[in-house]
Parts: sequence; structure tokens; C-alpha cells
Amino acid sequence: MLTPEQKENLVVVLAGARNPLNIGAAARAMSNFGFRTLRIVTEFPLPVTEAKSAVDAAEVMQQATVHGSFAEAIGDCGLIYGTTAVGDRRLEHPVEPLPQAAAAVRNVLAGKQRAAIVFGSEKTGMTNEQMSYCSGLLTIPMEVHGTSMNLGQSVAVCLWELTRDGVSGGVMPEDGFADSAAVDRFEAVLREGLTATGYEAKFPANCGEEMTRRLVRRLRLNRKDAEIWTGIWRQVLWKLRQ
Amino acid sequence: MLTPEQKENLVVVLAGARNPLNIGAAARAMSNFGFRTLRIVTEFPLPVTEAKSAVDAAEVMQQATVHGSFAEAIGDCGLIYGTTAVGDRRLEHPVEPLPQAAAAVRNVLAGKQRAAIVFGSEKTGMTNEQMSYCSGLLTIPMEVHGTSMNLGQSVAVCLWELTRDGVSGGVMPEDGFADSAAVDRFEAVLREGLTATGYEAKFPANCGEEMTRRLVRRLRLNRKDAEIWTGIWRQVLWKLRQ
Repeated sequence: MLTPEQKENLVVVLAGARNPLNIGAAARAMSNFGFRTLRIVTEFPLPVTEAKSAVDAAEVMQQATVHGSFAEAIGDCGLIYGTTAVGDRRLEHPVEPLPQAAAAVRNVLAGKQRAAIVFGSEKTGMTNEQMSYCSGLLTIPMEVHGTSMNLGQSVAVCLWELTRDGVSGGVMPEDGFADSAAVDRFEAVLREGLTATGYEAKFPANCGEEMTRRLVRRLRLNRKDAEIWTGIWRQVLWKLRQ
Repeated sequence: MLTPEQKENLVVVLAGARNPLNIGAAARAMSNFGFRTLRIVTEFPLPVTEAKSAVDAAEVMQQATVHGSFAEAIGDCGLIYGTTAVGDRRLEHPVEPLPQAAAAVRNVLAGKQRAAIVFGSEKTGMTNEQMSYCSGLLTIPMEVHGTSMNLGQSVAVCLWELTRDGVSGGVMPEDGFADSAAVDRFEAVLREGLTATGYEAKFPANCGEEMTRRLVRRLRLNRKDAEIWTGIWRQVLWKLRQ
């Protein structure tokens, strides 16, 4: 069972949802299962009034924060799962079935760290760029591979899976996963390194911004290792400048 | 895992739902999880056209049957669960949490018999009369006892619970984990790099042989990523030697 504190640390991110009814439905499911931390990523003004009228979800909606940047919305999270119906897009992260991903999320929450589950837009799902920030992807196994699911229903099913009594699993580093913002710092110094060493010029196909981001996120670095790898690459840069 | 035949024998009964959007949402969830037998109990003419337009649920909606009598709608079912948020009504049936009820339903389906899950009206839930026909009641355990849940979301959560057992686990990258020997090669070139950049001289405590090996193994690289990281570090060494 998740404690109220652990539930507080579960961040539900709606990245690109446009329909206020869907946002309200997501908030209502959160309220039903006792989660309160909702972050909405949108470039457009949110029709907040409509969404705020969602039945039983007033408190969640009032506390919801709106973010212009996806990276910012997940900056303080140690484990970030994007959701996908696994259509025909080539996914470069391994995709885990919901029960397994939920177990990993529960572990992170038990370690008093924030974890995020991200839901993309109703129409198109998550963008490749958004996915590139995720530690992993989760899918709700369905009858027909790749069918899309209603947003509010996906949120309800994921939160139910998190709260139902379940066996915990997954690997949780002792000191917690590095926050997304710390991984950003590693990524930035690595990218400088790829340029400075000439790797980028030689293997441009490996060095697209998203490619690199995914490469780094797949590592699921813990806090300490993120610092070590950042330090190693700072040293590479320092040496190259000698 | 439920077989297609067993799924066919699960009867979803909407007893009193009025909003065609909700009926469509329930049908869509059924379609997502591979269930097809939908029965709608209503005394009113159903705004079928609207409901039939439900995304991804056309087949379920077209096969749906409409019944004037609740008893008739569940007449051929061997086990009937009514759903309830367990408000202040006096319930005369024992109420089981969803996981337990779902297990009972699966058993009945495995015995090649029909089982029903009944969802009441959006506004008032099931009537006492409808409940009286049920073999038992199930509830989705929520944060606040008695909160009501969105109809489509309830259906999605119940059907997910029915199908989730037997979902296979284990994180496995698509192309498999890198063989240990491949990780060794990465480790070797990394270690050369740590020396060549002066990192080892600066942070000897981070560079013990086992330390480095652990640092690298914690990454759990997949095959392709192991190659990429090895290539990146070869390039670092090449550049330093210029």
C-alpha cells in the first residue's frame, strides 16, 4: 500500500492533452485513487475553468501546475515513464507492460523520491521528443496491439494498478535515481564531448539531439553515478582543452 | 490469460446508463481489452446513433443488445457481480474488492460459463432491485470510501483487472542485453580513457577496478548501446592522441 506521502510523490503529467473533459477525467481518477500531483504541459492557454469543474476533482485541479516545458515538468523526478500504445512508431526505449512498470514506480516512491507517469495528447500520443526524456515506456497490454485507449481510462487503469495490492519488483538503486535535471546536466556535458572529440562529425547518425537524450535516459543512472559520469566527461573536456 | 471464448462469455451489463458518451466509453474499453458482449438495460429509447459512433468500439456497439428487463439481461449468466462505490446504502450482499471478484469471475469463465459485471446509472448507481439479482457486489477500492467513479473508467479498471493476470514480466530490451564480453570491451576502453584524461589521477577513489566494473554493469546496456558507448570512448582516446 502506498502511503499518502508516497502518493504525493507520484507526478501525473498530461503532456499535450487539449480536451478539458479529458483533463477533468484524469483529475477525477487521480482524486478517486488519492493522488494529487498533476502537471499539465501545454503551449496553449488551458481552458482551466471548464476542466476545473470536473466532478470530484476540484482539489486536484486547483493544485495542478501548468508548464511550458516538458523537461521542467519532470525535472525533479527520478524515474519517468512515458505511456504508449506501441503503434507503428519505432520506439527506442524498451517498453514494459503496466504491472512491471507500476512495480518499479512503487519502488521509487517507497524510496521517497518522485516518479512521473506521462500521458501524451489524445490525438497523437507522446511526441518523440517527449519520449526521449523518459527513463522508460509503459504500455497497457490490450487485445489488439497498438489500439489507442481513452485518456481518462488510461489514467484510471494506471493509477489502479499502482494502488492495487501488488508484488513489488524492479530494481531500485539505494540512493535513488538521479533527478531528470541532473541527467540533463550529464547529457549537456556529454554532448559537448561528442562534438569536441569529433565523434559527432564521424557518426552524425548517433548524435541527433533526441538520439543522445534517449541513449542517456536508457542508462537510468542513480544519483551518484550521474555525478560520476558528469565528472568523467568534464574531465574529458578539460583534457581536450589542454 | 483468458481465451477469446472466455472473453466472449464475459457479459458487461450497463443498467441505466443514460449518457451515450459514457456508453461509448464503456464499449471502447471493452474493445481495447478484447471483450464483445455488451448488454444495455434501459426503459428509454437509447440514443444509439451517438453511442455507436464511439471511437474504436463500432463492433462492440453493433453487437450490443438492448433489454427492457434486468433479469432477462443476466438470465444466462452463472455469476453476476454488481458494482458499487459502497455509499451509505445498506447493502445486503457482501462486498468484495475488485481483485477478489475478478478472480471469481475468471474461474467461472474458465468453466465455460457466462459471468456478468453490472454497472448502474451514472447518477444513482444500481438500484436495490438490480442488486438483488446479483450473486455478489464488487467495489474498486478507492481513497475515499464511497466516492463515485466515472462509468467508463470503472469499466476500464474492471476489465483490466480481469485480463491483467498472466501478463508476462521481465524487462528485456528488444535486441537483448549486451553480452558480458561486450561490456568488458566497453569497460576496457573506458578505463583507458579515465587514465588518459587524468580523471583517475584526480579521483582515484572512483577508479578502482571493481568500482569501474560496477559503474559500467549498473548501466545494463543493451547490445546496440554497448557498441555506441564503446565507439564514443574509442573516439575520445583517438582525439586525445592527436
